[in-house]
Amino acid sequence: MRDVSIVGIGQTKVGEHWEKSLRDLAVESLWAAMDEVGIEKADALYVGNMLGGQFVGQEHLGTLIADFAGLRGTEAFRVEAACCSGAAALRQGYLAVASGLHDIVAVTGVEKMTDALGCTTAAGLATATDGDYEASQGLSLVAVHALLMRRYMYKYGATNADFAMFAVNAHRNAVGNPYAMFHRPISKDAFEKARMIADPINLLDSAPVADGAATLVLCPREQASEFSTQPIRISASAVATDSVALHDRRDLLFLESAYLSAKRAYQQAGVGPDDIDVFELHDAFTIMSALSLEACGFAERGEGYRLGQNGNISLEGPTPICTMGGLKARGNPVGATGVYQVVEVVEQLRGQAGPNQVQSPRLGMAQNIGGSGGTAITHIMEAMN
Amino acid sequence: MRDVSIVGIGQTKVGEHWEKSLRDLAVESLWAAMDEVGIEKADALYVGNMLGGQFVGQEHLGTLIADFAGLRGTEAFRVEAACCSGAAALRQGYLAVASGLHDIVAVTGVEKMTDALGCTTAAGLATATDGDYEASQGLSLVAVHALLMRRYMYKYGATNADFAMFAVNAHRNAVGNPYAMFHRPISKDAFEKARMIADPINLLDSAPVADGAATLVLCPREQASEFSTQPIRISASAVATDSVALHDRRDLLFLESAYLSAKRAYQQAGVGPDDIDVFELHDAFTIMSALSLEACGFAERGEGYRLGQNGNISLEGPTPICTMGGLKARGNPVGATGVYQVVEVVEQLRGQAGPNQVQSPRLGMAQNIGGSGGTAITHIMEAMN
Repeated sequence: MRDVSIVGIGQTKVGEHWEKSLRDLAVESLWAAMDEVGIEKADALYVGNMLGGQFVGQEHLGTLIADFAGLRGTEAFRVEAACCSGAAALRQGYLAVASGLHDIVAVTGVEKMTDALGCTTAAGLATATDGDYEASQGLSLVAVHALLMRRYMYKYGATNADFAMFAVNAHRNAVGNPYAMFHRPISKDAFEKARMIADPINLLDSAPVADGAATLVLCPREQASEFSTQPIRISASAVATDSVALHDRRDLLFLESAYLSAKRAYQQAGVGPDDIDVFELHDAFTIMSALSLEACGFAERGEGYRLGQNGNISLEGPTPICTMGGLKARGNPVGATGVYQVVEVVEQLRGQAGPNQVQSPRLGMAQNIGGSGGTAITHIMEAMN
Repeated sequence: MRDVSIVGIGQTKVGEHWEKSLRDLAVESLWAAMDEVGIEKADALYVGNMLGGQFVGQEHLGTLIADFAGLRGTEAFRVEAACCSGAAALRQGYLAVASGLHDIVAVTGVEKMTDALGCTTAAGLATATDGDYEASQGLSLVAVHALLMRRYMYKYGATNADFAMFAVNAHRNAVGNPYAMFHRPISKDAFEKARMIADPINLLDSAPVADGAATLVLCPREQASEFSTQPIRISASAVATDSVALHDRRDLLFLESAYLSAKRAYQQAGVGPDDIDVFELHDAFTIMSALSLEACGFAERGEGYRLGQNGNISLEGPTPICTMGGLKARGNPVGATGVYQVVEVVEQLRGQAGPNQVQSPRLGMAQNIGGSGGTAITHIMEAMN
């Protein structure tokens, strides 16, 4: 298969876009990316979206967005894998270019959540869980994660406050990201006083749902210099799954999908966790930051939360995570998040991360997780300059 | 890219499966296909489904079905393109094998519609239209097609009765398909007396929504003989899009997406319409049969409906369509339909179509259409014996 490069990025600000529809957001990010590349056409469009049908009554999003962006006629699909729909769309776009099927491919992640009409936000998000065994028993998506966090705290003797620095770090970084939802730092004290959402998960453990869209433009590596002075190579793309329902996991506190997809990605790129300079992980809840760091080899089991405490995860630390605010403070427009993560890695590898710039990063990793770990998709990107 | 073969098929009966869940149906068809091939694992699973989120409160279907089928860990996604989600999933599965990424890939189309809880069937199906410009104005999916049919009748002087033989042919063929929803022929007289659904579309112009699942197992052509004595080659796979909304089409009565995807498929396979021995077209409504036959080069514009009248489309005719009952009488479990169509072409090319066997077919084509023509996906299959 061919090597694939990212030559264009685009994103909307994440937030409550009451005045913009789902298609408006998608097209805005798509045009921003296409403008950067200097193209008016693409061979295909892959759209990552989880909740368009339930929230705004719109399926058929691949074709709809392609048409409104001026790409009528082109191949277009929507790809869905719950909260990792964005990375799933990138996976398909990557494959379309790597295979030689297409040369110029756009990947757009989009979600419109703040004026959901079709159902409540909690009910929509719960469709990422196992409906027959979890949601139907009253387990919301946050409740499923609360079970994970409670178990982790019980097994490893951690307290809720031990997770504070994941949120503090994310909010600190979001200040420097003009596209982030929140631009104010939070204190450890504020975290500890935050009200409970689903005990032991409090408001500041939780990433906010939001509206937003992000786009990547891909092409074969050998053509990349035609479109960008700073093409970023996709060194690895890997997917793994686990049971959707928690009760069926072999080990509740080990994200097997995250472990397997990271392992496959490391193998494809020929690297290990020590080589990763920036890691955009899936901090939908702080417990997921700890579990992801453990599953991906950055911490021993039961030690992930300590990376938050000892400064390891800050922009200056050995394992910078959520460098542009993460899901927690950039905001989590669910089906778009996986694309935002990769856009942010690209910003870091290009040296365009402004005040949040990590020093001379060469390799960046993004891991997008569906549900409570049912699916994990890992991409590794490499600066070529 | 590598040549790809279909080595296994599986399907559930189409109908009202009150006693089976969405995952039950999907796994039943997946296991039937895997049993036929004699495998217990696959490298990836692509699931075609349109309405799981809205109807049964379940997204994240790729991973959920993979896990319940015993494929935990494997790459799995859901692909959605409204009513052509099934063919969209096949498109991704085809690409995964053709590219060399995976060797054994399963493609499952599934829909569970008869006990929809989340919204009405009409509201769910309307999310295949342009929500902001069509559904929100009260246009259901059948109403959109009624506009097409009325315009066609006006422009070409056809009457509703002129479309009868598409339904009569489908019902006649379904009698010989054990997996079909309806097993009784209908008369032209019954068609003419059928009650109106959305004038001029009557009950017997319309394919019934239903529950069902179908699966294909793919592998590289050079490995196909390990898994099947009758592998079927996928000679072409092509996608094209148009505007989702009717009012934006360049020409209301020309299915540009169907035309373009068929043209691309013919080019890839190096054949033309005269070479196609079996054509499974997307007869969600009889008007779509006429428009598809015209767009794919089987009839001049304005003449498609005559192919129904003159016997051309019957099993003995030059252009057999809907040979196992079509959407009309096999039933239309929306996201599964595109996979059923290809399963049926495979049955014909293997010579396993029983009383419905077309004489010595070599090439079969399946065309799955999303919405009222927003997306069209065409696959051409070839018998290799």
